[in-house]
Amino acid sequence: MNGWQFTGTNEPLTLVEKSDPVATPGTVIIDVKSAGLCHSDVATLRDPGWMNILAKVPIILGHEIAGVISEVGDGVTDYKLGQRVAVCPVGKDGLGPGNGRDGGYANKVLVPAVDLVPIPENVSFAQAAASTDAGMTSYHAMFQKGGAKAGMKVGIIGIGGLGQMAARAAVVAGCEVYAAEVSAPARELAKEIGCKVVVEDVKELAEYAPELIVDYAGFGTTTADAIDTVAVGGTVVLVGMGKLQSNINTSNLILKSVQLKGSVGGTVEDIAAILQLMSEGHLNPTISEISFEEIADGLERLERHEVTGRLVANLE
Amino acid sequence: MNGWQFTGTNEPLTLVEKSDPVATPGTVIIDVKSAGLCHSDVATLRDPGWMNILAKVPIILGHEIAGVISEVGDGVTDYKLGQRVAVCPVGKDGLGPGNGRDGGYANKVLVPAVDLVPIPENVSFAQAAASTDAGMTSYHAMFQKGGAKAGMKVGIIGIGGLGQMAARAAVVAGCEVYAAEVSAPARELAKEIGCKVVVEDVKELAEYAPELIVDYAGFGTTTADAIDTVAVGGTVVLVGMGKLQSNINTSNLILKSVQLKGSVGGTVEDIAAILQLMSEGHLNPTISEISFEEIADGLERLERHEVTGRLVANLE
Repeated sequence: MNGWQFTGTNEPLTLVEKSDPVATPGTVIIDVKSAGLCHSDVATLRDPGWMNILAKVPIILGHEIAGVISEVGDGVTDYKLGQRVAVCPVGKDGLGPGNGRDGGYANKVLVPAVDLVPIPENVSFAQAAASTDAGMTSYHAMFQKGGAKAGMKVGIIGIGGLGQMAARAAVVAGCEVYAAEVSAPARELAKEIGCKVVVEDVKELAEYAPELIVDYAGFGTTTADAIDTVAVGGTVVLVGMGKLQSNINTSNLILKSVQLKGSVGGTVEDIAAILQLMSEGHLNPTISEISFEEIADGLERLERHEVTGRLVANLE
Repeated sequence: MNGWQFTGTNEPLTLVEKSDPVATPGTVIIDVKSAGLCHSDVATLRDPGWMNILAKVPIILGHEIAGVISEVGDGVTDYKLGQRVAVCPVGKDGLGPGNGRDGGYANKVLVPAVDLVPIPENVSFAQAAASTDAGMTSYHAMFQKGGAKAGMKVGIIGIGGLGQMAARAAVVAGCEVYAAEVSAPARELAKEIGCKVVVEDVKELAEYAPELIVDYAGFGTTTADAIDTVAVGGTVVLVGMGKLQSNINTSNLILKSVQLKGSVGGTVEDIAAILQLMSEGHLNPTISEISFEEIADGLERLERHEVTGRLVANLE
């Protein structure tokens, strides 16, 4: 098998060859068909803090995986050879692909069966890959942590891969959605998917007093600004890990009785919900597709903010 | 009337003479008997951010007030001349004493009747003054925001005026209480009032994995350390405003799914609960008593961390 391996902070990803993984009891081997590229991979490459998060280094990155089962381990009864599946990036055993064990920037990957989600027939591998992590995380943060519901004023920071799905899901759910996004093309996208007001800087949303702001960017200042902007008694959910520090104004947090909730991951059920929304035509996230060989270059494009929507690598 | 007036950041409090306040409809005039000194007054004196929080400047500070009603305004039926009362620092009209209108570092103060709480017979004015803000805020943060309950592992940062009451109330409620406090005498106090483990730095509490940490100090680093220390899925409640900024590790907030809740103030009901605990002998906070003339010096002692427990000024 071939895979893109991370060896240390600010080291380039390198394409390596390793022996093929073999299914152990309770696991399957997936022939990867699509792998999503995530801003957290850029953070992994650049921020030394990530060296403490990864369970092992070197490691093949890639935690957004869709493919076809090519081997089934002993004791796996719910899945069969040839089945189309997506992978929950949050491993039930605590070891996710691309951070706990080798991930999906490879043509083969070993995955415990409990972390699999079947892909509906009319959803492509690229869409499915974009639904894991991106979809799961955005859905979980908005609806489980944030408690978004019909009629609520919801702010969203960052209309990238995660934010656009959350924005669309929130619009479909009947929320009043307010988006803040630095990129002009992404602001256009935000309008197209039904956001009521679209601005460049979250601070411009103060006049609308959003009850909930979900920060899918997480560039430190965005979180601090969200706390300053959200309504009295409001909630800020932090998802994005663009930077690993935020210098917050605790005076506003305290005096407005704001709660800041960290949200990470989600469950196979969140992914199933997102795949269902896709299958029914409610969600069709913008995806930019590249080849397996372009993964390292693709992460650099992400870092330069040159990508609108979700970047997915397709394998032959 | 005489009162200690704040005129601007880093300006000394000055004792000024003003005309006596007169009760307007719905309000009473209180002859102040005890006024509590609060760390937030030190912050008001030193941190320019507070200039935006105060409704007017100059202003007589002092928001922890107990005294005797000396005048009753039209329409006030629940209170009578000579009654012993404490004052809720959070005004129902949004204007609290010492930040929205002139406060209790004075011999007379005007207060809306809806913000009054009767003082039980066996509770002193000094104890009652210490129960407003200190008691209310500590009780509200621990039990309302933090959801402390029997059997819960609760961390407390800062065994000062607020922290000691919260610690004792939590012990009485059946929590396992873990205290972090920089002052050695205050650590002794924490042990005396029933804390299970007492340390200097909250990071030392990580091995006990507290489900809730309430930060009554709020020195920026304490909040950041609390996020790093609390159990996975845990809650940090921030109350103290020792500094108005905190540089938090958002990676830990996100990856541990921690929630950080700002908590401010409370209600007359919180104060009534604290006064009831005092009246029943469950709470007897350490109080250092000074005279009215010593208020400015007392705030400097607070700033130098020379005070154990709550500092209260008594008036003749």
